Amino acid sequence: MKARARPKNKICLPDGFSFSGVCVGIKASGQPDLALVEACAGTTAAAVFTKNRVVAAPLDVGRASLAASRGRVRAVIVNSGNANCATGKAGSRACERICRELARLLGLHATEVFPSSTGIIGVPLPVDKIISKLPELAAAREATEQGMARFARAIMTTDTRPKLACADFHLGNTSVKMLGLAKGAGMIHPQLATMLVYLFTDVVATPPELRQVLGQACDQTFNCVSIDGDTSTNDTVLLLASSRSGMRLKEASVRKRFSDTLRSVCQSLAEQILSDGEGVRHVIQLSIEQARNRAEAVRVARAVAHSLLVKTAWAGADPNWGRILAAVGRSGVAVNSTHVTILIGDQVVCRNGAGCAFDEKRAHQDLKQSRCEIRIRLRRGTSSTTFLTTDLTAEYVRINADYST
Amino acid sequence: MKARARPKNKICLPDGFSFSGVCVGIKASGQPDLALVEACAGTTAAAVFTKNRVVAAPLDVGRASLAASRGRVRAVIVNSGNANCATGKAGSRACERICRELARLLGLHATEVFPSSTGIIGVPLPVDKIISKLPELAAAREATEQGMARFARAIMTTDTRPKLACADFHLGNTSVKMLGLAKGAGMIHPQLATMLVYLFTDVVATPPELRQVLGQACDQTFNCVSIDGDTSTNDTVLLLASSRSGMRLKEASVRKRFSDTLRSVCQSLAEQILSDGEGVRHVIQLSIEQARNRAEAVRVARAVAHSLLVKTAWAGADPNWGRILAAVGRSGVAVNSTHVTILIGDQVVCRNGAGCAFDEKRAHQDLKQSRCEIRIRLRRGTSSTTFLTTDLTAEYVRINADYST
Repeated sequence: MKARARPKNKICLPDGFSFSGVCVGIKASGQPDLALVEACAGTTAAAVFTKNRVVAAPLDVGRASLAASRGRVRAVIVNSGNANCATGKAGSRACERICRELARLLGLHATEVFPSSTGIIGVPLPVDKIISKLPELAAAREATEQGMARFARAIMTTDTRPKLACADFHLGNTSVKMLGLAKGAGMIHPQLATMLVYLFTDVVATPPELRQVLGQACDQTFNCVSIDGDTSTNDTVLLLASSRSGMRLKEASVRKRFSDTLRSVCQSLAEQILSDGEGVRHVIQLSIEQARNRAEAVRVARAVAHSLLVKTAWAGADPNWGRILAAVGRSGVAVNSTHVTILIGDQVVCRNGAGCAFDEKRAHQDLKQSRCEIRIRLRRGTSSTTFLTTDLTAEYVRINADYST
Repeated sequence: MKARARPKNKICLPDGFSFSGVCVGIKASGQPDLALVEACAGTTAAAVFTKNRVVAAPLDVGRASLAASRGRVRAVIVNSGNANCATGKAGSRACERICRELARLLGLHATEVFPSSTGIIGVPLPVDKIISKLPELAAAREATEQGMARFARAIMTTDTRPKLACADFHLGNTSVKMLGLAKGAGMIHPQLATMLVYLFTDVVATPPELRQVLGQACDQTFNCVSIDGDTSTNDTVLLLASSRSGMRLKEASVRKRFSDTLRSVCQSLAEQILSDGEGVRHVIQLSIEQARNRAEAVRVARAVAHSLLVKTAWAGADPNWGRILAAVGRSGVAVNSTHVTILIGDQVVCRNGAGCAFDEKRAHQDLKQSRCEIRIRLRRGTSSTTFLTTDLTAEYVRINADYST
């Protein structure tokens, strides 16, 4: 089990960041759709982007800006309702124009502005509308919970709720704070799911130091969840460090605590994104055990998590271990099927590749919970991984098949 | 476009085979569930099995028998309603007992009997019930259309109709006939989809000659269709050649015609299996063009065919090319997204990775047909492939999520 973010009664805003969100009218609903973070001077950054070869314009622009500024970010501008993807050169120019305009307003270099978009694919970005709202957006920024809440709402598409996680740790008299804000995997015609995650901290760190801890944290959290196996063209995770705590990431004592804290915040956001996935009724925690190495454990987890037959069985809370076993068998890992053992909840339902007596009613009840653990033991080694996934419901299909001319 | 089986008004039964089917009571419905083919002396065989590492008992037994008999098959025994998979050593013993008993009744070696099972996974095979019906099954066999129809019905699980394709070709005064019988991808709790295909011909061929033509035909047909990306534990394609036509496969003129005929029969069966898939409303023919090689064309096709977002869009006849483009992007092939062009029906909907004006209503109408072609051009080379797949409907989810304790 990965550590979860400790529940915080109080939101802890790391020092050095101010937030705002306004309505531009990109979304037909009239909901907020333009969001800003301003970061204090000296803020360092690292980002992880989608592995999809089809990449939206803001990701290309953001990647280039991070390189040009050597990992310095002073502002993040996000619009929802339009992904600015598959929009050709005009899409890149639109994104660059917005960054330049915002930089001018805030007295920054354009390469210090990091852009994101999420929403409809293949539709030109209403760039003039956005630019006309930038002064209002910039003026509204505040380093408060209200500002943060406005940001969190303005980056949503079909999310039913904002996703937020906080954590901090103390060393001596000083503390390091961390705040994570995310939007998740919801889609309506013709949108794509996009995961956008913004992580704010007040630790002191260089961009390479941030990149390393962020990469590890993503591998263990966001890269271990899947709703439908579709990788968005816009997925972005950005980590910003304001330095304001005075605690240095390069010190071993800080580094360990910081990595744990970052992972717990990412894990909490990943779980929030999953449970707010469209049509999702059940979150399943897959634990793959006794694999030869972590890579093959993840491979088995993905094969099970992406099997339509397995996911539909989960939708019916059906303890159908045969489908799970068959998915393990086609994972590409050279498992010996007579070595595979499967547990649903705390019951062994398949031992050494064959069915065994179990309380089917109890397994059904376990699967009916909003969250259930399924363990798969391969008897090949000592590596293990956990992977969060969801059921596949008729509701998911309805939402994503809905089309009216 | 692959050649399709020429429609035959008349079923052509290759000489040398007799068929039967009876009710054993494995299926709760009381439908026929035990089927037999007897082949004449001298019949040669080749088989292709599932690539799943979890393999049902009859596949292990059948593979071993084919090796022991050096590709000689005199009888095929198939039960539906129980997959005899994940049933441990008892499952293998049950299968071997049935083969031995049938061999005794027909005066054959046990290794000349080829077994198949399809249905529930993880449930012991009711072996005594089956054995008690073998005399009736053997007595009922006949080399007629009625016998063949009984066989085709008795191998069905949740198929709504039998799948059958015939073809023949003439060279001089002699003809070679081919008959294919298949069952497809249907599943109800807790069954797995299983594809069983039996191909009968009267050509003269050695087992290695048959293996080669069968492998090629499968690659181009059954391996280019996908309903849900789940590979069954029981999938089997068996080709039997009775020699009765006197035409030799090793002769170049025969070989070419035979390969074409085999491919067309396999293609027809593959299409029948797809269109009878559970919950399927639309069959989509993906044509991947301008790939660097066939392997990468297939890789792109699979990524698109297995994308839940793409499949659900098809269910709604939604010409959502953005989801297709995103699936191409995550296929693992190093496509340049600005080189990708997508056609729905005869309209270009995305050119060079960006949207273009098209008649959306017409694209919607095209997708509403029971079959629609989608072409994806990668501008990387000159290879291409076609791949048949289906939409993903709420009905599919309902069927496979249905569970009642």
